[in-house]
Amino acid sequence: MFEEIYEDLCKEIEALIEEKKYSRIRAILQDMEPADIALLFEEFPDDETTLMFRLLPKELAAECFVEMDTDVQKVLVEAFSDAELGYVVDKLFVDDTVDIIEEMPANIVKRILKQASPEKRNMINQLLHYPKDSAGSIMTTEFVHLRARMTVGEAFAKIREIGEKKEIIYTCYVTDSERHLKGVITVKEMILAGEDAVLDDIMETAIVSVNTHDDKEDVARSMDKYNFLALPVVDNEERLVGIVTFDDAMDVISEEDTEDIQSMAAILPSDKPYLKTGTFETWRKRIPWLLLLMLSATLTSQIIAGFETKLAAASVLIAYIPMLMGTGGNCGSQSSVTVIRGLSLDEIEFSDFFRVIWREIRVSVLCGATLAAVNFVKIIFVDGMLFGNDEITLQVNLIISLSIVVTVFIAKLVGAMLPMLAQKIGFDPAVMASPFITTIVDALSLVIYFQFAKLILHL
Amino acid sequence: MFEEIYEDLCKEIEALIEEKKYSRIRAILQDMEPADIALLFEEFPDDETTLMFRLLPKELAAECFVEMDTDVQKVLVEAFSDAELGYVVDKLFVDDTVDIIEEMPANIVKRILKQASPEKRNMINQLLHYPKDSAGSIMTTEFVHLRARMTVGEAFAKIREIGEKKEIIYTCYVTDSERHLKGVITVKEMILAGEDAVLDDIMETAIVSVNTHDDKEDVARSMDKYNFLALPVVDNEERLVGIVTFDDAMDVISEEDTEDIQSMAAILPSDKPYLKTGTFETWRKRIPWLLLLMLSATLTSQIIAGFETKLAAASVLIAYIPMLMGTGGNCGSQSSVTVIRGLSLDEIEFSDFFRVIWREIRVSVLCGATLAAVNFVKIIFVDGMLFGNDEITLQVNLIISLSIVVTVFIAKLVGAMLPMLAQKIGFDPAVMASPFITTIVDALSLVIYFQFAKLILHL
Repeated sequence: MFEEIYEDLCKEIEALIEEKKYSRIRAILQDMEPADIALLFEEFPDDETTLMFRLLPKELAAECFVEMDTDVQKVLVEAFSDAELGYVVDKLFVDDTVDIIEEMPANIVKRILKQASPEKRNMINQLLHYPKDSAGSIMTTEFVHLRARMTVGEAFAKIREIGEKKEIIYTCYVTDSERHLKGVITVKEMILAGEDAVLDDIMETAIVSVNTHDDKEDVARSMDKYNFLALPVVDNEERLVGIVTFDDAMDVISEEDTEDIQSMAAILPSDKPYLKTGTFETWRKRIPWLLLLMLSATLTSQIIAGFETKLAAASVLIAYIPMLMGTGGNCGSQSSVTVIRGLSLDEIEFSDFFRVIWREIRVSVLCGATLAAVNFVKIIFVDGMLFGNDEITLQVNLIISLSIVVTVFIAKLVGAMLPMLAQKIGFDPAVMASPFITTIVDALSLVIYFQFAKLILHL
Repeated sequence: MFEEIYEDLCKEIEALIEEKKYSRIRAILQDMEPADIALLFEEFPDDETTLMFRLLPKELAAECFVEMDTDVQKVLVEAFSDAELGYVVDKLFVDDTVDIIEEMPANIVKRILKQASPEKRNMINQLLHYPKDSAGSIMTTEFVHLRARMTVGEAFAKIREIGEKKEIIYTCYVTDSERHLKGVITVKEMILAGEDAVLDDIMETAIVSVNTHDDKEDVARSMDKYNFLALPVVDNEERLVGIVTFDDAMDVISEEDTEDIQSMAAILPSDKPYLKTGTFETWRKRIPWLLLLMLSATLTSQIIAGFETKLAAASVLIAYIPMLMGTGGNCGSQSSVTVIRGLSLDEIEFSDFFRVIWREIRVSVLCGATLAAVNFVKIIFVDGMLFGNDEITLQVNLIISLSIVVTVFIAKLVGAMLPMLAQKIGFDPAVMASPFITTIVDALSLVIYFQFAKLILHL
């Protein structure tokens, strides 16, 4: 798709700028999607970006502005005259304006707010007020509200009058004089019902709505589940204050998945694309967990050190420590990642705790038995016969294989339990559980290994 | 939201079934979302599910059927009379019917196809034909197509006539007599333009479309990027054959993210929810990578075994093997996971290869230096002074700390390069790169560690 023609297009436009063929550039940009234009602008120096932006038809210019990187937006706002900025701000939807404002330095925020109409400034301030991860922070206050006694014809007239300024017109909301939500009606239902139908007769009154303070991830996942185009958001007095639209829900899902993936890999969450994050910023996101996990490995070091003299008498055991710890770690992360994803997607609830544990017990017995059996045979034929390592006795093999069975069992149990417990006490399961599991399983697998060694070799 | 009242609702309905208060059950279900009803049905025994399904108003019954689990669908289809099945099949959208058919045993598929109208049967067969991960496999063939010479009034009349059977009516497609896509027009634009406007004058002619054989993940990510409600799908002759709707795109994004997460945790991808997957099935998805990774650890065992006699002379080094391998593994997975996610979201292309490598080099130097410095100090004060381990000389400390620097460097490079190379040669980066990185980094970190030991301790 677009990515394939991207580089050629950059070169073409560069050449056109050189030759000052501005109307040709305008013609090219006019046929592109706003998101693609925004991507393109990032490749050009500041003065050329401003030049190209001014070539855009005004409507399209505002649409592109929303899609741009914060750095490009800053450059543009600084180059804008008050009139230019005023036009863009007027065309922006309130929720997009809020997203932009949150990333801008104070002086630019001031200029933007100065250009907004008093009504819009009010709505912006209201939205800025909601907590970061709440439904309120991602909703828009620009939606169509109608009255129950209107006919479809009247409703369409109203939409025609105000619709251009509204983000989603296809789901309309019927409210009373106190702004309480009474019904929902789609444009599809209105078209099918015909001009003369009265909304009261055709609107849906069993309404799914969310509160401004609900978690935005829950809201987005519900919209995915119900296939909603938009979801109404009400305040504590059940008054309709905004809607969350499907495109913002899609963004939330994608961002939350990125966060979960980062947390599972022991990285602090960041919503900036990789190539736009500076070296120090990347380091800052990665080093805390690396340090913590490195230091917590002091535990495994101490366990080994405490067994050192005995280990000297059976040094063949050392060679299998990495395999045992690795297998335990892999088993643990399989279970934890599965449970974390299940919790994210609401496929698993805390009330399923014992069902999950029981499932993991059965799976871990199967996995442990398979791994131990294969390992047992492999050690005899590969390590023993092929590599001719005569230190590997049947007893040593037994220690290793039995340790695998028990380690796998414990790793899977810990891996499944930790995320559920973390969520129960109010932590993000991905953040709290994933990185710790390896450390816990590492230590436990060593203890198990050395206990079997003591028992079987009488060390 | 719904989850909170779920259990109480189950109990309430159970009691109502007992008391045979069917009209009360009907009233409760009528006000619920289809997805929630489907969830509820899973909790009841087969005969009660069938009973409840028959209580639903017909329209709602069909909507719920789509949302249900395959097992419940099977139970229902087997209980249906031909007339009942015919009604549900008639109300189903073609793409949903195809999704259902793909999961059903042959005898049920035959019954379903028999009830479909010849036209619908044709469309179903066409959709069944597209490759599993293609845009064709997730598109619907039910969309509104209009002619360029129509007025808005005529277009609305057409929508009123055929709209009920179409999944998305808000984006309409203007085609010529050969079904070539000529323009796109939204209902919003039509409402704003008024009854008498001619589509030719107001439609958008710069159209983003995809091919039936494009990858469904790319299509879904584009829709997210462009905030599209629907995206037209054309065949190789540029004829419009279907559309992908936002709700299916949301599902694809969520599924693909789940697959990536599973692959990163060394699990074979599965699209079944955890609690609906059997024990053996779960085992089958988890055991292949566990076995492969366990067996590939033979390499680390051999490296350690080869160094065993020298290690006996400096046994203090053994205690730090897990820490070193763990740190290397964590660093590698941080980089690989970041790059894999960047590739998924199209934030990173193969052409960024050297930018990525250069970024990782700088970050790895920073991380390596920090970790080594902290480790150096920690070993002196904690392991040396606090735990009083007098084997830990300055030389030993130097070996460990230098190994950290080099291991972190290599781990981050390997972690960043492998996913990009995997994608370049046509493999899924998450599948090919993630699990292998630990094995590679494990082996390399041991080699580095032992080389430093030889060099510094003259072993």
